[in-house]
Amino acid sequence: MVSTLRSTASASTNPGSQSALRRLNEQRIVEALMAGPSTQAELSRATGLSTATVSNIVKVLQEASIVATEPTTSSGRRALSVRLNSNSAVAVGIDFGRRHLRVVVANLAYDILAEETVSLPLGHRADVGIAAAVDVLDSLLEDAGIDRRDILGVGTGIPGPIDHRTGTVAQGAILPEWVGFNLLTHLEETLGLPVFVDNDANLGALSEVTWGPHGSVENLIFVKIGSGIGAGLILNGQPFYGHVGVTGEIGHATIAEHGLVCRCGNRGCLETVASTTTMVELLSRGRQEPITPDDIVHQALAHDPATLRVIDDAGLAVGRALGNVANLINPEVIVVGGPLAELGDLLLDPVRRGLRRHAVPLIGQTTTVAMSALGARAEVLGGVALVFQHADISHHA
Amino acid sequence: MVSTLRSTASASTNPGSQSALRRLNEQRIVEALMAGPSTQAELSRATGLSTATVSNIVKVLQEASIVATEPTTSSGRRALSVRLNSNSAVAVGIDFGRRHLRVVVANLAYDILAEETVSLPLGHRADVGIAAAVDVLDSLLEDAGIDRRDILGVGTGIPGPIDHRTGTVAQGAILPEWVGFNLLTHLEETLGLPVFVDNDANLGALSEVTWGPHGSVENLIFVKIGSGIGAGLILNGQPFYGHVGVTGEIGHATIAEHGLVCRCGNRGCLETVASTTTMVELLSRGRQEPITPDDIVHQALAHDPATLRVIDDAGLAVGRALGNVANLINPEVIVVGGPLAELGDLLLDPVRRGLRRHAVPLIGQTTTVAMSALGARAEVLGGVALVFQHADISHHA
Repeated sequence: MVSTLRSTASASTNPGSQSALRRLNEQRIVEALMAGPSTQAELSRATGLSTATVSNIVKVLQEASIVATEPTTSSGRRALSVRLNSNSAVAVGIDFGRRHLRVVVANLAYDILAEETVSLPLGHRADVGIAAAVDVLDSLLEDAGIDRRDILGVGTGIPGPIDHRTGTVAQGAILPEWVGFNLLTHLEETLGLPVFVDNDANLGALSEVTWGPHGSVENLIFVKIGSGIGAGLILNGQPFYGHVGVTGEIGHATIAEHGLVCRCGNRGCLETVASTTTMVELLSRGRQEPITPDDIVHQALAHDPATLRVIDDAGLAVGRALGNVANLINPEVIVVGGPLAELGDLLLDPVRRGLRRHAVPLIGQTTTVAMSALGARAEVLGGVALVFQHADISHHA
Repeated sequence: MVSTLRSTASASTNPGSQSALRRLNEQRIVEALMAGPSTQAELSRATGLSTATVSNIVKVLQEASIVATEPTTSSGRRALSVRLNSNSAVAVGIDFGRRHLRVVVANLAYDILAEETVSLPLGHRADVGIAAAVDVLDSLLEDAGIDRRDILGVGTGIPGPIDHRTGTVAQGAILPEWVGFNLLTHLEETLGLPVFVDNDANLGALSEVTWGPHGSVENLIFVKIGSGIGAGLILNGQPFYGHVGVTGEIGHATIAEHGLVCRCGNRGCLETVASTTTMVELLSRGRQEPITPDDIVHQALAHDPATLRVIDDAGLAVGRALGNVANLINPEVIVVGGPLAELGDLLLDPVRRGLRRHAVPLIGQTTTVAMSALGARAEVLGGVALVFQHADISHHA
């Protein structure tokens, strides 16, 4: 079983290979069928594939029980109607956080079949997180009556960079106890299922172009503003991983050359001025108990002036960093996610102002900034999408 | 005729389309043949394509006179040896600068057949530049005895962003007289040849992975430090263009929030602290005549302390911007080009220091910074490569 990055890289470096092409074409047929049953001729028109190719792929998918066919007529001629056996193949998403674990099971039609979120102790070790994930998944499968053999794979995200050369969690993770841990192999051994691992912001980005409203966007950035700040990139329609798998580290863009020391070892990083951790510190001054990110949302919605100012300053700083990002990769859409999503324009307005101030004019004018519509589920749903993107659908027994 | 961006985008959004696949496979065969003549079986092994596919493509390329075949034996069996008719198809590169115009004609084996550089007056209009290019190309073709019908296309670069929605030169160009000009259509009409247009830094990047030593690098950034500062991106092995075609604008990364006003309308952009224009201003203070970029190189190589200090400060600022860039897209190699390339480590050392200071540790450690080996030819050679990448080789008459 290869990690996400490895399979992505091989598909992109060798785009003409038979297996990469077959998988791509299968995915296009499955995607076309998500809109409803189609005849083979309709599938050919919808995908641009030849009728012979469509017919071959339908046969393979039928043998794997992914689709079912029945005779029909179309314009008076005999035809074959093809429909998705949605529940014959499901994917599991697992989102590990600093204090939570979220598990979702969904089918090929992107319907959620089962879902649960549990709390984890702050500073938990990786094996504790994995044991909890196994328990939650087992009970979800039992409650929903899902056969383990129907699981195509497990897509999992963690709030930290993954070094794709080793498959381990790299330094800089919001979960420092997990650094150096090989989540891929441990999870595969424990679950006995194909596993795909990615950074949580990358999964958020994938989620926006699959589950979310941005399916037609080729170049999208998902920015997660939380205890850390990270971005996931969709470039030319695909998640982008770079040389060793560590991309979108905008939380460590330098904003203040001689600013606060950051957990990465540099100074004045975006995280030191705009993460929820920093907002909490600023707004808890003089209080007995520190406030929570939820309190920030409530206070802002109640128009507390200090909270609004802190959000405005943070948004401007994020916008400044995004201006530089947009100057570099010219995205069509930037989606903001994380625990402050409920703030809506209170957060987006300063982000947009910062972006327009720091981007070259043409880029400032053509970049859309939007709040994520997927809320706290963005990452875990991205895990499901990762499986559908990489699992070998037709070789599923 | 489509612009570069459009053909790239269609290939990437529809990677399974028959025409995109055919062109890719043809390119792989042609690339394999650049190493020397091969049998069809060897081509199949070298490209991973089936022997049937290789045989079909060889037939098509032979009809277009791109390759020639002759019977041979291999391990005692009859086989067909295929070799490139290198000069049967050539490409033209044209590099427009503020004060120069450079034209190159090269064949499919990446041999330069003809080359000339001429001066243009500072502030020249676009039609003056085009007329000069037509004259230079005509005389090069005549002198080298190249038949116009053998030209696959013309790849041209200009120091400014191209808006791919309109094909025009966008605001922010180093050639302000060219803004709003549709170089693609004007050049196609004047030359009567297929034309591909791109930003000069993008062509520099393409050049490094084709003519240059970085052919195996999947993720590379080419940074041109000149009167402006711009970058070209190779991501997943292909030039990257983003949403409207304006990428790599790192010259406008904010370095000093309240710094000098930049020609883009923002303040404290990288260009205001690290372009050759700024270095010239700093080092010409108190002189009768301003110095030139060449003087900067000579003075630095002669260890003039003020020049070395200015280069060090500029390099650090470029490195800081590149640290943020590397945090975002995690390149394997960053290549520095432009008129200061002769400075070597005098410029690269501070760039590397700035990069390591501002990149997250894993990225700082895994990013190689190198000087371009292609010198002033990088952009024009990238124009040639652009043609070989996008022209329809087998449909060449």
